[in-house]
Amino acid sequence: MINIKEDERLSRLNHSCAHLLAQAIKHLYPNAKFWVGPVVEEGFYYDIDLGDKTITEDDLPLIEKEMKKISKDGKRIVRHELTREEALDMFKEDPYKIDLISRMDDDTLITCYSQGDFTDLCRGPHVDTVKELKNFKLLKIAGAYWKGDSNNQMLTRIYGICFDDIESLENHLQELEELKQRDHRKIGKDLGIYMMSDLVGRGLPMYLPNGFTLWNLLENYIRDKEIKRGYVHVQTPPLGNVNLYKTSGHLEHYKDSMFPIMEVEDEEYVLRPMNCPHHMVMYSNDIHSYKELPIRIAEIARDCRYESSGSLKGIERVRSFCQNDCHIFCTPDQIESEFKGVVDLILEVYKELGISNYKFELSLRDPEDKVKYHQDDEMWNLAENKLREVLNDLGVEYVEKIGEAAFYGPKLDVQVKPVVGNEVTLSTCQLDFCLPSKFDLKYVDADGSKKTPVVIHRAILGTLDRFIALYLEETKGNLPLWLAPVQMKVIPVNNKYHLEYATKITEMLKENGIRVKLDDREEKLGYKLRESQIEKVPMTIILGQNEVDNNTISFRRHASEDTTTLTIDEFINKVNDEIKNKVRY
Amino acid sequence: MINIKEDERLSRLNHSCAHLLAQAIKHLYPNAKFWVGPVVEEGFYYDIDLGDKTITEDDLPLIEKEMKKISKDGKRIVRHELTREEALDMFKEDPYKIDLISRMDDDTLITCYSQGDFTDLCRGPHVDTVKELKNFKLLKIAGAYWKGDSNNQMLTRIYGICFDDIESLENHLQELEELKQRDHRKIGKDLGIYMMSDLVGRGLPMYLPNGFTLWNLLENYIRDKEIKRGYVHVQTPPLGNVNLYKTSGHLEHYKDSMFPIMEVEDEEYVLRPMNCPHHMVMYSNDIHSYKELPIRIAEIARDCRYESSGSLKGIERVRSFCQNDCHIFCTPDQIESEFKGVVDLILEVYKELGISNYKFELSLRDPEDKVKYHQDDEMWNLAENKLREVLNDLGVEYVEKIGEAAFYGPKLDVQVKPVVGNEVTLSTCQLDFCLPSKFDLKYVDADGSKKTPVVIHRAILGTLDRFIALYLEETKGNLPLWLAPVQMKVIPVNNKYHLEYATKITEMLKENGIRVKLDDREEKLGYKLRESQIEKVPMTIILGQNEVDNNTISFRRHASEDTTTLTIDEFINKVNDEIKNKVRY
Repeated sequence: MINIKEDERLSRLNHSCAHLLAQAIKHLYPNAKFWVGPVVEEGFYYDIDLGDKTITEDDLPLIEKEMKKISKDGKRIVRHELTREEALDMFKEDPYKIDLISRMDDDTLITCYSQGDFTDLCRGPHVDTVKELKNFKLLKIAGAYWKGDSNNQMLTRIYGICFDDIESLENHLQELEELKQRDHRKIGKDLGIYMMSDLVGRGLPMYLPNGFTLWNLLENYIRDKEIKRGYVHVQTPPLGNVNLYKTSGHLEHYKDSMFPIMEVEDEEYVLRPMNCPHHMVMYSNDIHSYKELPIRIAEIARDCRYESSGSLKGIERVRSFCQNDCHIFCTPDQIESEFKGVVDLILEVYKELGISNYKFELSLRDPEDKVKYHQDDEMWNLAENKLREVLNDLGVEYVEKIGEAAFYGPKLDVQVKPVVGNEVTLSTCQLDFCLPSKFDLKYVDADGSKKTPVVIHRAILGTLDRFIALYLEETKGNLPLWLAPVQMKVIPVNNKYHLEYATKITEMLKENGIRVKLDDREEKLGYKLRESQIEKVPMTIILGQNEVDNNTISFRRHASEDTTTLTIDEFINKVNDEIKNKVRY
Repeated sequence: MINIKEDERLSRLNHSCAHLLAQAIKHLYPNAKFWVGPVVEEGFYYDIDLGDKTITEDDLPLIEKEMKKISKDGKRIVRHELTREEALDMFKEDPYKIDLISRMDDDTLITCYSQGDFTDLCRGPHVDTVKELKNFKLLKIAGAYWKGDSNNQMLTRIYGICFDDIESLENHLQELEELKQRDHRKIGKDLGIYMMSDLVGRGLPMYLPNGFTLWNLLENYIRDKEIKRGYVHVQTPPLGNVNLYKTSGHLEHYKDSMFPIMEVEDEEYVLRPMNCPHHMVMYSNDIHSYKELPIRIAEIARDCRYESSGSLKGIERVRSFCQNDCHIFCTPDQIESEFKGVVDLILEVYKELGISNYKFELSLRDPEDKVKYHQDDEMWNLAENKLREVLNDLGVEYVEKIGEAAFYGPKLDVQVKPVVGNEVTLSTCQLDFCLPSKFDLKYVDADGSKKTPVVIHRAILGTLDRFIALYLEETKGNLPLWLAPVQMKVIPVNNKYHLEYATKITEMLKENGIRVKLDDREEKLGYKLRESQIEKVPMTIILGQNEVDNNTISFRRHASEDTTTLTIDEFINKVNDEIKNKVRY
């Protein structure tokens, strides 16, 4: 996605287009007063006081029409320099501009720009003539408090974008539409995945039945894989005594991202921002022999972090989430095989889920930096070399990032490039030489001596919430059969004649563990089919006289008009096969 | 379990025995000073200042011996009345007694009781002679702050109990032993179910791998049952905006049981004490037609309540727990069938889990009480009559409790009587005529008018934490095969000759989805068998030369010495059958 602010020519063009918008507004709504109209990453906006007048997105075409008209007139854009007195006099009717002027330093050069019947206070620069402002689009309307202060009046903010040529504009609008269609907030609503409510709280998603089904399938999927690989799963509470985070050192470094502390009796509690300390305490519950290691303590763990309300976004960035977390406690000798196991699991999961556009980043210490890094050269060298070896052995491509390691050990991140939007870190595998000592963790080695284990923090799906957001955007909500909350809908062609058969088929599929819904409403077939499309149900079963007579099932896949007819047994076998093999369409 | 305080004779006996204890302590530790020695439900205790001396439970037999000796001497217990001056003079060496005396009202009659060389300040009454104090037992030692204030010095509290005859004492001690053996805190430790840590926080259980396995089995068990009955499952966050609890009215009535409020930006958040409001908001996310009702929103929901640290007990009473919760939104016409469905589910679950000692309590309003109850006589009459009818139709025995209903509607509680300990409410089904209105919930009725649904709160397993505590105590930790975290252990008779076969069998069982552990340690067979017993593993497989030669499996059930030998296929079929049918041994 283009960043308008980073391109000088486009910045100037969009800035001028903001003036064009203001001029058109003034023509249409003569009482309008103007605050500021800056260039932003997405184009430009102008904050406008329309007095009693309210406008909606339906009014944007009219405003665009007026802008086109002015552009066609082709007036030159002329710059004037003003003294403070001249400026105050020129804008004496406009309290917003007076506010701006009065807050300028005495030695600021005040300028304004005129085009035909419109003049605006502005630093510029601008394009030469409004003729150049042909290829624009008004994008949306929002409310914005004057000076961003909720005690002030609400202004109308109109967003737009302008390009030099029509092709660039059209390409951009198409990209925006793609983004909108892929936005997990839209798909999440269409598919009934989650809801948000200010009454419940900002950044606290509530997973609706379909969303929880998807969540549970993913949770079981990753847990089963982990159990097969010798992980043990636990459950720990979403809060802890503050002493836990004093011991770990998190309280000192991480306090700004934590929820406020709660005083309970004579103790202090806090919603946990991460669950590592809980797992450390669990390890310390027993004496461990080297023979028991590695111990892999895993949990789909509820954590809570404070995020400013402005940075929250759907289920991508929230205040309460669940991590697909694990802490591996091992001997230094086991680092290599454990690390290999984690990378192997990442590759297996990505392949099955169809995540293909990713890269590995190996973050190492800067050996010159004696301040940042935990001082144990032998351990660092051992670990870094082993990590490299494993990646080389697996034939995995990766980039090394010197000086990017955490202070407590080297790490591997997997960066995924989504179809739209910026790169995200999905999986991570971090060695930790420090935390085990802070909790005084030990194991009894073969010689009877007590030693400190190494800890590996790792997450495969990252946080489940964010993973679901990513996966919905990657798949556009077209989930593979095995993950779809509603795998199929059964629609009788005519309720009067085919409902009985449709009910029988639905029950039969349910008995086979398939998540199926019967649409027995008194609606037209076409209407039901369209709805099944919108809900992105992978398979829609249509049952008419033919199917009743021959005891068959006819179905269409999502976004396809082709109908396939199979016997009931053939159909169930096919479906079970697709689910088992996690087939993607 | 007997309550000593409720029996006048036993109260007197135990009070006298507390004096006997003090006398013996004085003989053995002449510097000891005495605070108070009251009768309690469990017998008696005495709080003693032993100065520098520390005693442990190992010292109790010695003290008991001295008590027996004094008892045999058979001194009379004599009451004296004292003036305040006499009392202050008599106990001038004892700051504790001085403290007691100086806090007495001027007109209090001060008395003391003497027996041989020992006199104690005491209101009495006491038995006539120490001869009567023969059948006693010292039970345990604990620390107790003077006056219960942690700023004061720690005293030694010795607990004991006394009966008139030896049989009663022995029966009681046996009952205590049974209680101890059944205490879920002991079983939870033996079976690796959960752990507690003050560093993590009081009342915040951490489920260990075995505990989480059990938890997950129970969670899936009840969820699958609910899904089959048309429930939908959701996931909502463990906290909410305080406004949510203002809307529901909980903030006002329930604040003392809530965690402290957290200020986040300009809002207030709180760990939720219950999840009803979240589900109300979820219902209101859509417009609902009467055709969609009933909607059954279920969740294994994480809630947090403040409990004083003194009232916490294992996983029975905690500060963070998960409810097996559901809110059914229905029309008044559907109350009957929904209520029936809930009772039916309760009966089905109890039968499968082997919970047999329970009774139903139907709590109704007191029609005379016009203050407490939500005023809607028609609704109350309709609901109460329907609930009665359902219970009658199902042939379920129940007692009616007039005036015990909540203000918002009638309810059904299921009271379970455990093998040891007091009756507990396990399941509940509560009608609510009030909460839906508070959240302005509606459905569109057949005539197009908007109506308010009825809400039914219901929980089958109650909270999962408390259910696990109860179930461990009921089963003494001998879980049925389908619920056992470790279903079987495989032990080769001799690692040298039989480990290969044992490994093969273990892998084969794992592939069949059985939770099995191979005990390949270099330990004696007897040692391994005993450990498997302590861990209450339902089946222990012992593989020797006979099994290797004949390709068979020999196994013992928990607490049995009988060995059964089967072919591999027979064994797997038998096991699968027991798991499927939830057989209890």
